Amino acid sequence: MNDALQRLFTTIESRRNADPAVSYVAKMLGKGTAKIAKKVGEEGVEVAIAAAQADRAATVRESADLVFHLMLLWAAMGIAPTDVMAELERREGVSGIEEKKKRAW
Amino acid sequence: MNDALQRLFTTIESRRNADPAVSYVAKMLGKGTAKIAKKVGEEGVEVAIAAAQADRAATVRESADLVFHLMLLWAAMGIAPTDVMAELERREGVSGIEEKKKRAW
Amino acid sequence: MNDALQRLFTTIESRRNADPAVSYVAKMLGKGTAKIAKKVGEEGVEVAIAAAQADRAATVRESADLVFHLMLLWAAMGIAPTDVMAELERREGVSGIEEKKKRAW
Amino acid sequence: MNDALQRLFTTIESRRNADPAVSYVAKMLGKGTAKIAKKVGEEGVEVAIAAAQADRAATVRESADLVFHLMLLWAAMGIAPTDVMAELERREGVSGIEEKKKRAW
Repeated sequence: MNDALQRLFTTIESRRNADPAVSYVAKMLGKGTAKIAKKVGEEGVEVAIAAAQADRAATVRESADLVFHLMLLWAAMGIAPTDVMAELERREGVSGIEEKKKRAW
Repeated sequence: MNDALQRLFTTIESRRNADPAVSYVAKMLGKGTAKIAKKVGEEGVEVAIAAAQADRAATVRESADLVFHLMLLWAAMGIAPTDVMAELERREGVSGIEEKKKRAW
Repeated sequence: MNDALQRLFTTIESRRNADPAVSYVAKMLGKGTAKIAKKVGEEGVEVAIAAAQADRAATVRESADLVFHLMLLWAAMGIAPTDVMAELERREGVSGIEEKKKRAW
Repeated sequence: MNDALQRLFTTIESRRNADPAVSYVAKMLGKGTAKIAKKVGEEGVEVAIAAAQADRAATVRESADLVFHLMLLWAAMGIAPTDVMAELERREGVSGIEEKKKRAW
């Protein structure tokens, strides 16, 4: 899944200064963080509803929307995907060491 | 960001049959898709609020929570990360061809 | 706040069979419960973001949107506002009796 | 539904200065607007999921939770329920006049 995500983030960054009339990325980045944050929240709701309805195909589609808008939010806030991955790895490390404890993944 | 995500999904799958008393993954998978879907929706809200408050560090942390629970949802529903990546690539392809159109990324 | 809410619900019910081309209520009811549920989830996110940004006027506006779509959802599912009020009163009663307990309102 | 809501808001206000150890209202108000906003967003997700699953009883319960936390948010931000009702009435008025237009309720 790696290359697709890396490429997606590169694509998002490359469209930052594109014409908002032709690029959804440029248009959304121009609206600012709060508007993109709202979209992330809404897409999270849509994933949740698709899953609650056991609609696998819709869950895949809504997950793609969510991942895309989440990366757009990261781009808007100057967060690198590796920042989030480092946070995930940190926890995995903790859970590796403490795997007997309740909160271990 | 690739290996971290791939490894995270492998970790989730490996804990599927662990003791729910010691593994959060096993506990959540045991609760079923609807409960995990709820968590995904809630984590989406938390990312949105952290971002709306311009709290970069909290946005990183909540993003990690969201990505983790999203993958947990995929595991619960038999969705492979590559299914979502294929959907993302399909759109990127469309947007490459139709990049003059309004919805192009 | 009473009469406004009661009247709002009566208005919603009265537009149930209106022309979806002229009535938003009729249009949304025609789309079904899942679509309205999605709107409720999204409006909840919008209230949360407006509040997290300490934007009082936006919180009032988004709260009105949320209350309206929540009532639309009740109409779609055959839930009377009094069903929800009875649930609220039941808890208030419980919390009155058990007010020393931690979860009392 | 009127009296129940009015009384609920009065109850919330009356517990503002209660001991957070015994009053959930006082505890949540002490945590501040952002935490209550998060709860509103989360309860919105829970209503949406209950409704998407066509679980009427759960939708009633989650709706009560949502209404309660929404009022708690209003109390935290100095919003009177009548502020929200005025916004709802304003729209109803508009939609009454313009009821041929597409967005009329």
